[in-house]
Amino acid sequence: MHPEHITFFHWPQSRSAGTRMLLEELQADYQIHLLDLKKGQQRTPEFLALNPMGKVPAVRHGDVVVTEQAAVFMYLAELYPERGLSPAIGDPLRGPYLRWMVFYGSCFEPAMIDKSMDREPGAASSCPYGSYEMVVRLIERQLERGPWLLGDRYTAADVLWASALGWILAFKLIPASAPVQAYVERFRARPAVQRAMALDAEIAS
Amino acid sequence: MHPEHITFFHWPQSRSAGTRMLLEELQADYQIHLLDLKKGQQRTPEFLALNPMGKVPAVRHGDVVVTEQAAVFMYLAELYPERGLSPAIGDPLRGPYLRWMVFYGSCFEPAMIDKSMDREPGAASSCPYGSYEMVVRLIERQLERGPWLLGDRYTAADVLWASALGWILAFKLIPASAPVQAYVERFRARPAVQRAMALDAEIAS
Repeated sequence: MHPEHITFFHWPQSRSAGTRMLLEELQADYQIHLLDLKKGQQRTPEFLALNPMGKVPAVRHGDVVVTEQAAVFMYLAELYPERGLSPAIGDPLRGPYLRWMVFYGSCFEPAMIDKSMDREPGAASSCPYGSYEMVVRLIERQLERGPWLLGDRYTAADVLWASALGWILAFKLIPASAPVQAYVERFRARPAVQRAMALDAEIAS
Repeated sequence: MHPEHITFFHWPQSRSAGTRMLLEELQADYQIHLLDLKKGQQRTPEFLALNPMGKVPAVRHGDVVVTEQAAVFMYLAELYPERGLSPAIGDPLRGPYLRWMVFYGSCFEPAMIDKSMDREPGAASSCPYGSYEMVVRLIERQLERGPWLLGDRYTAADVLWASALGWILAFKLIPASAPVQAYVERFRARPAVQRAMALDAEIAS
């Protein structure tokens, strides 16, 4: 099951920064293919053939290409079951894990994008996320329990959420509440996360 | 691994119609808890405690509650590995399966909501889906290969996508292209899908 080879399409200070943290947590064997987003390298025909959305993160593993953050996270975490970051099928945390993985892109990102653009969420019948306030309250309540998103166990869902919440706090898109701040700090204190941040800082400098 | 008991929170002619099709495909043992969306039964304190977003589908399986369409689909399909609708970890289709599952809520729904509201997609750096045209073209190309989303193998991703595309075509949110129409028809001809539609029509009548 172990990867022969993972190519990671990446640019620091982008949506792919969290994926690098996950790869470090997994102690994965990966090669970085840098795409300078400021130079538009995510829009070359070569990369659009892999990800027509022109976004990072994307990973290639053998003949398989995976895109979309939560899919990349689930796929990579499953490749390294011995790291314990992906609750196995049948584990009581499996349902919450999938729920929070999907909730991220289906509800949280749309709510944050609408907030950042000062847009209304749309009709209740079609809107995926209820209201911005509801989304924020849900995350705060979940993190009040802690220490991690699913409780005592640290999973790939934490890498996704804590890395994203760090950016979201920096952009002031959600209030800097105590549970969210403490969660992001707890995450950033992890050695693998520190390592990923240091490696990315080297690229950016 | 088999479910002791699945409670399915449902309302016909809503986002949960596809989940009923999946439950029928899986030959799952489930009980329906109807929530009349027209009467606002998805906004009772009891249901909001299960899904603060106030949406169906939601499923309860033992003590676990799963919400968000793609998460519900992945969870249920994994419960019945013998039906073959969830490519196993290590299967070459695992990556594409996760990718299309996540792409649905992260890119396709946002693109369709923006389209239905006649909104701009937002800045390229934050927008999750590139452009509406790109999303439509990607789906059409994928379905031209067919017969199913991942090729020859029918998976839970088809139940999610084909049931959604049926609605999307009905609301004229994407062009009625030959590959999309043929795909939806192929899906609707399946006995389990026919059964789910007939059972839902009984509730609605």
